[in-house]
Amino acid sequence: MRVFSFINRVIHAHSTPYKLLALFSVSGGGLVAFSDSQAESGRHGVEPSQKESKKKLVVLGTGWAGTSFLKDLDISSYDVQVVSPRNYFAFTPLLPSVTCGTVEARSIVEPIRNMIKKRSGEINFWEADCLKIDAANKRVFCQSNLDANVVGSNEFSLEYDYLVIAVGAQVNTFNTPGVLEYCHFLKEVEDAQRIRRTVIDCFEKAVLPGLSEEERQTNLHFIIVGGGPTGVEFAAELHDFVQEDLVKLYPSVKDLVKITVIQSGDHILNTFDERISSFAEQKFQRDGIEVLTGSRVVNVSDKFINMKMKSTGEVFSVPHGMVLWSTGVGARPVVKDFMEQIGQGNRRVLATDEWLRVKGCQDVYALGDCATIDQRKIMEDILTIFKAADKDNSGTLTMDEFEDVIEDILVRYPQVELYLTSKHLPDVTYLLKDAQGNEREEVNYEEFKSALCLVDSQAKSLPATAQVAAQQGAYLSRCFNIREQCETNPEGPRLFRGSARHQFRPFRYKHLGQFAPLGGDQAAAELPGDWVSMGHSTQWLWYSVYASKQVSWRTRFLVVSDWGRRYIFGRDSSRI
Amino acid sequence: MRVFSFINRVIHAHSTPYKLLALFSVSGGGLVAFSDSQAESGRHGVEPSQKESKKKLVVLGTGWAGTSFLKDLDISSYDVQVVSPRNYFAFTPLLPSVTCGTVEARSIVEPIRNMIKKRSGEINFWEADCLKIDAANKRVFCQSNLDANVVGSNEFSLEYDYLVIAVGAQVNTFNTPGVLEYCHFLKEVEDAQRIRRTVIDCFEKAVLPGLSEEERQTNLHFIIVGGGPTGVEFAAELHDFVQEDLVKLYPSVKDLVKITVIQSGDHILNTFDERISSFAEQKFQRDGIEVLTGSRVVNVSDKFINMKMKSTGEVFSVPHGMVLWSTGVGARPVVKDFMEQIGQGNRRVLATDEWLRVKGCQDVYALGDCATIDQRKIMEDILTIFKAADKDNSGTLTMDEFEDVIEDILVRYPQVELYLTSKHLPDVTYLLKDAQGNEREEVNYEEFKSALCLVDSQAKSLPATAQVAAQQGAYLSRCFNIREQCETNPEGPRLFRGSARHQFRPFRYKHLGQFAPLGGDQAAAELPGDWVSMGHSTQWLWYSVYASKQVSWRTRFLVVSDWGRRYIFGRDSSRI
Repeated sequence: MRVFSFINRVIHAHSTPYKLLALFSVSGGGLVAFSDSQAESGRHGVEPSQKESKKKLVVLGTGWAGTSFLKDLDISSYDVQVVSPRNYFAFTPLLPSVTCGTVEARSIVEPIRNMIKKRSGEINFWEADCLKIDAANKRVFCQSNLDANVVGSNEFSLEYDYLVIAVGAQVNTFNTPGVLEYCHFLKEVEDAQRIRRTVIDCFEKAVLPGLSEEERQTNLHFIIVGGGPTGVEFAAELHDFVQEDLVKLYPSVKDLVKITVIQSGDHILNTFDERISSFAEQKFQRDGIEVLTGSRVVNVSDKFINMKMKSTGEVFSVPHGMVLWSTGVGARPVVKDFMEQIGQGNRRVLATDEWLRVKGCQDVYALGDCATIDQRKIMEDILTIFKAADKDNSGTLTMDEFEDVIEDILVRYPQVELYLTSKHLPDVTYLLKDAQGNEREEVNYEEFKSALCLVDSQAKSLPATAQVAAQQGAYLSRCFNIREQCETNPEGPRLFRGSARHQFRPFRYKHLGQFAPLGGDQAAAELPGDWVSMGHSTQWLWYSVYASKQVSWRTRFLVVSDWGRRYIFGRDSSRI
Repeated sequence: MRVFSFINRVIHAHSTPYKLLALFSVSGGGLVAFSDSQAESGRHGVEPSQKESKKKLVVLGTGWAGTSFLKDLDISSYDVQVVSPRNYFAFTPLLPSVTCGTVEARSIVEPIRNMIKKRSGEINFWEADCLKIDAANKRVFCQSNLDANVVGSNEFSLEYDYLVIAVGAQVNTFNTPGVLEYCHFLKEVEDAQRIRRTVIDCFEKAVLPGLSEEERQTNLHFIIVGGGPTGVEFAAELHDFVQEDLVKLYPSVKDLVKITVIQSGDHILNTFDERISSFAEQKFQRDGIEVLTGSRVVNVSDKFINMKMKSTGEVFSVPHGMVLWSTGVGARPVVKDFMEQIGQGNRRVLATDEWLRVKGCQDVYALGDCATIDQRKIMEDILTIFKAADKDNSGTLTMDEFEDVIEDILVRYPQVELYLTSKHLPDVTYLLKDAQGNEREEVNYEEFKSALCLVDSQAKSLPATAQVAAQQGAYLSRCFNIREQCETNPEGPRLFRGSARHQFRPFRYKHLGQFAPLGGDQAAAELPGDWVSMGHSTQWLWYSVYASKQVSWRTRFLVVSDWGRRYIFGRDSSRI
């Protein structure tokens, strides 16, 4: 047993790669010597004295945006404080899998402190809600969200030099009565766990003695409001859960189960390529999942959901056992209050410029679902650009003069490139061709303006996805890391009003494609370059992409072993 | 991808052993042909018409006793209905491991329907609480414990011919004020999950800005009331969790953590061998876990716990961050109500005879923590036994006459054997020796009585453990299975009043030993035959015993992989 206790000590004293090494060595029959290379984790005190030279950076939120920002931030140059009601990062794209137990909740979360302790420098995390942002006094007010049964005051405030708002969004009920009371949502890990219990509840209830056939049927009617990726994936997961696992355990009611997806538009997955959309609709039809398009939910009660057909205006009522509401997002209260303060009260979410700086205040950044980039329109600056480009003040732009500013225009106004792609034009100079398609030697202001006048139509706001948030986080941390050097050597595009340059390049989103798992081990994917892929092979692509995107080796191991467990043993139907 | 989808189909269509076989075959590079041997699971309807010939058997509870009873029951001869508020069986001895994330909650539960569907015959499970037992009308009244938001009536009643009560016990607060409001318990899986969140809460709270050192210290003071196996194991688990995982994540408060075990007796683990008890106390002292013996809790408030030293009568108050109350069990309300009905109102738990039949009513059985066996004292029957044994009515018992009844006495009064063991006597005839130790030819009634008069002191009630409950369940299912054949061929001991025999042998508990994990990969074990084992090797024994005792391959796989995960990645500290 001495060998065991030695292994124990080895395993406990060292970091994960060494543990793996130790385990492999042991399993291989030998033991290797190794040194303890773990960095001292340091004391996370709150004494301000040592840090006064550093700028205070407060980060609100530990979702995709906040975590991606923190992950790459060089925290040696800032005094970083992180406030979030959750002490973990959740891999939200797997939430639909958690609702049916394909993946366990704990497999998709990673403690923020685990991600922090591996880094050098000082960083403080407080598990609390931010209640108020006071931009005028550069201060945030927070309240710990812990049980009352803990000792000491649970309110505190933090001063900041820079504030990064990454608190995400909350569910948007569109003020539909009854939604908050009677619907499930799928934003947080707890939501997914609650849905899982409710699904089992519905089955347990449906088999109780003394119920009529209709009552059993109603208990087993699952309604999903919203045919976006989340709603569709949940419907598919639920269908698999029922067909692969629950029908064996509840055989007496297996024919009474019904899943309905309600979509106000004409098609589900309407943000995807229409080939995917119709593939999904056909698959759902084969699976017996009803898709009710062109319907709007009027209100929800504990037993019924009332809908209106958009085309006929007819109102009808459907009994339900459970409703999932997944129809887009709105601002959180703290963000709404902040928007009022800075004159953005009539907007849906926070508006930032292309550098993710919140419009209307200083040193505040917002990213992820709580914000949207207000892309500057090229038409607003068209005269300034023309004048800046027209170096000889001739009133016309030669090709040479134009080519001098092309690069800066493309960086500053990404819609130009999007427009070129949408029109299949290889080059921006094609815009300046005349009506007959001939190249022009020079263009005057009016010609220049009319050549670019359609470009702004391509300035679309980015979707509220993990991908956008993660890219924004990575972008912003880079800006923070190179702030000092960019003060002397700005890297951004030219300021057409004057000869200076922007300090940083503006944020540019790179769409890497998106997946829609459709159940039965089939998925659809939109890949970069207009590629579309559907079927079983895409599901395996999905598995590999999602496994590789995990934030830690621990969650990667857990998620993959959950998938394996599901294949071998099925999903667990215990109501916990 | 065709191979993948073939494997998919194979995996989905077949039962677990085949899946494992298929996976192994695939991983070995080949595919084997196999046939579908899965039994039709059958329809679990509630139509009574087909079952009228069968006796109605209602089982309340799906804990150790209920599940062990159902597992071995030949359900083809009964119309079985199971009522339990939990649709799963929980491997409760691992609950302390769940509190700190060494093992996940879901790894120790197995759905009852999963255990049922593998069996032939009909069995119905209702997820509901039993509210009332009406023994006079042979009926139980139940209420489903599901959310209100499900359709149909959630109350129903069931008729029975036989009733098996295995509802377990609830926490006993001994009417101490504040316990129900401010203490944690460790009876259910949900309790363990709640404790896990609270432990993390205490740490998150302790590091918040603006707290005094005392407030931080108070938040990190964990108090365990009760030094039994559960309390001690939780203290050990918590200590490991703190030392192995949390100190790295919360380095600023690592020296403020304190764990205190409060025990009213003089030693912790006082139901164990005293070598184990003192080993545990020494280990706890080395680990810095305070053990406060001889103290009784007077009351508990949200911030303080008030205690009284038994020796001095001094009352003192200790601030706490969290209190776990684990001090023994009491009857559940439905059992209390039932006890009132059958005249057992002044007892702590239900009294049964040695055949697990509830005293004072017909066809009702009780087992597990909700009941205790009222062992018949041999002194109550001593005259009857003497007369029955004295075949020639000589007024004295010869050795031959005595040996004729020995077997029946030993079966009917197990305390005789316990007494012999405790006195190290090899044989029951040794009891009849005279004061000088010489064998006697015959004994008269007074001599016979005085020879056995000390025997009843060994009739102890059984502890409220999983081991007892499981053995009782297995025993009772055997009785139910052989009921018919035992009606004609009774297998029990002789009824001394008359010449008939008892239908069944009475229940006899076989103690297989018990474990006490003490943290730091050390455990103590009491093994059969007065053996005691302590240290790291015992922890490995514990691992193997607990892995082998799992109720399904799924939970075995999960528990073992949880242990492995803990070694490699540590425990997760996300607050979910």
